[in-house]
Amino acid sequence: MYIPIILGTGREGRASEKVAKFVSDQLSLSGNITEIIDVRDHGARATWEPSPMTVEYKRKIKEADGVIVVSPEYNHGYPGELKMLLDSAYDEYFGKPMGICGVSIGILGGARMIEQLRLVSIELHMIPMREAVMFSNVGKLFDDKGAIIDPSYGDRLKKLIDEIMSRAPKKQAV
Amino acid sequence: MYIPIILGTGREGRASEKVAKFVSDQLSLSGNITEIIDVRDHGARATWEPSPMTVEYKRKIKEADGVIVVSPEYNHGYPGELKMLLDSAYDEYFGKPMGICGVSIGILGGARMIEQLRLVSIELHMIPMREAVMFSNVGKLFDDKGAIIDPSYGDRLKKLIDEIMSRAPKKQAV
Amino acid sequence: MYIPIILGTGREGRASEKVAKFVSDQLSLSGNITEIIDVRDHGARATWEPSPMTVEYKRKIKEADGVIVVSPEYNHGYPGELKMLLDSAYDEYFGKPMGICGVSIGILGGARMIEQLRLVSIELHMIPMREAVMFSNVGKLFDDKGAIIDPSYGDRLKKLIDEIMSRAPKKQAV
Amino acid sequence: MYIPIILGTGREGRASEKVAKFVSDQLSLSGNITEIIDVRDHGARATWEPSPMTVEYKRKIKEADGVIVVSPEYNHGYPGELKMLLDSAYDEYFGKPMGICGVSIGILGGARMIEQLRLVSIELHMIPMREAVMFSNVGKLFDDKGAIIDPSYGDRLKKLIDEIMSRAPKKQAV
Repeated sequence: MYIPIILGTGREGRASEKVAKFVSDQLSLSGNITEIIDVRDHGARATWEPSPMTVEYKRKIKEADGVIVVSPEYNHGYPGELKMLLDSAYDEYFGKPMGICGVSIGILGGARMIEQLRLVSIELHMIPMREAVMFSNVGKLFDDKGAIIDPSYGDRLKKLIDEIMSRAPKKQAV
Repeated sequence: MYIPIILGTGREGRASEKVAKFVSDQLSLSGNITEIIDVRDHGARATWEPSPMTVEYKRKIKEADGVIVVSPEYNHGYPGELKMLLDSAYDEYFGKPMGICGVSIGILGGARMIEQLRLVSIELHMIPMREAVMFSNVGKLFDDKGAIIDPSYGDRLKKLIDEIMSRAPKKQAV
Repeated sequence: MYIPIILGTGREGRASEKVAKFVSDQLSLSGNITEIIDVRDHGARATWEPSPMTVEYKRKIKEADGVIVVSPEYNHGYPGELKMLLDSAYDEYFGKPMGICGVSIGILGGARMIEQLRLVSIELHMIPMREAVMFSNVGKLFDDKGAIIDPSYGDRLKKLIDEIMSRAPKKQAV
Repeated sequence: MYIPIILGTGREGRASEKVAKFVSDQLSLSGNITEIIDVRDHGARATWEPSPMTVEYKRKIKEADGVIVVSPEYNHGYPGELKMLLDSAYDEYFGKPMGICGVSIGILGGARMIEQLRLVSIELHMIPMREAVMFSNVGKLFDDKGAIIDPSYGDRLKKLIDEIMSRAPKKQAV
């Protein structure tokens, strides 16, 4: 059989490359044909690749009292480009609330992406908000000028904003 | 408060941009300072951005009888560059088994990344394997020549390979 | 502070009881008041408590070519009584497809319960189906005689049934 | 084929029963043999079944400044008896930190159960802690007198307790 291996990180010094080679050897021993498909060859930056924009991102998150992520759901998870950005900072997130707005063409509004992202946010030392706003049927949700058609979203979003404001860490007076 | 919005997709024609602007307006109405942090400005390719490599990737997946992903866990999820690659194909995955090998410096071996990725694989019409190999303590797992030190991994990986081979879709005789 | 401990298994011989006592001691050392709230005192059977019905359940699952679970979502997860039943068998599930129908008063139709349950089904050696049917707005979905009002559910369910039938393990001729 | 339906809630007035009957009809129409396996027939209490102990549980949770759950992982999820207890309260959890200690015979210490339970805790309006303690290899972790053998768990647990204490809602002076 032909069973390729996807090497899932492009990071400098990645230990996963050794593992991929071991897996490759074992697949061959089992009589299979294989090759390593390397994410590095597919044009995405690697996570943690140095960039001036990362410095800028960290500065903004450090300043922030909280963060709202607006994102579609891709195959029940979060987009790769979002995850790469989130993974590029760490200490800067500490103790800050994260709210999530899901966006979808269909009716679920990104509900499963929200769940996966909440687990990431906890590991980042953030406080995941209980409220979440799911913008479903987004193809028909805005008029030609970009104004939202369903006014109920204002109230739903207000609940999320209120929760974020109530959970934001107190700033020290200087 | 200062509550920036992370716009989580760089995709051409993204509806999430309209949602992000709506969220921005509402944050301002609530008396907060905000701005949109756009993943496009942070150097990753956008998911579904055309690339010659995507054609190549789709061709390989279409040929494959099954796939093994080897990946570390980043903040309890999968690396962004891996997700971007996985999201770049769709029909080509149909009915094929996906095995996952997690890699970690610590003892958990990517167990939580494996769970998140399994849910993605189901949506891609793949068959998630019950076996998974967790390469933990990877910093000490290989010798200077890249040979694995703990021989038990051979047997564990064999179980995964066997499961993949037993679940691979039958090819039509031509 | 008063920080009670919930001991989450009622199983005979549970090791978690020792851990709970250790946690209790450490909470006291930190100057907190605590006590152990034991699920055994709250009337549910313990998982794996012997029962004649378990024998019956295992027999049915062993006979089955596949299984469909119909369930609501409770607080983003599966109902406890469902999990207890699923956990009461193991070998009998091997290689069989599991389909899931979610039920909800709201619009999401149990989408998050479905994700959590899929991960359980993989560990049970089952094949999670890609199709899932989400019965949303269930309060208005059936007429007084129990007939479904929205005819589109027939087609959606058909896709799930077809997938189960195509994934069912071949029976050996005798 | 024989495809039984598992009806996953025992709750009084369950809408899922109507859905299960609809699924049963459709399975028959597709030429399958089916029957409904009802969790009510398998001895667990139904979630939300009234009980004097529930009143007691709610009272304790209302008093609590935070909660620690100690639990094993069953098939990558939480035990059913734990979920039934957690689902029996709601308002009483509001804004309180939940810490989780996982327990396992193997090396993972319940890491996947912890992730599923965190998502439940968010829906319960609790604050999931970033720290978690995974008691792995629990069969060898305690001596004959029930004392823990590995002293490092004290420090790990201390971090969790500290996080809970720092996140507990401020009580109003009376």
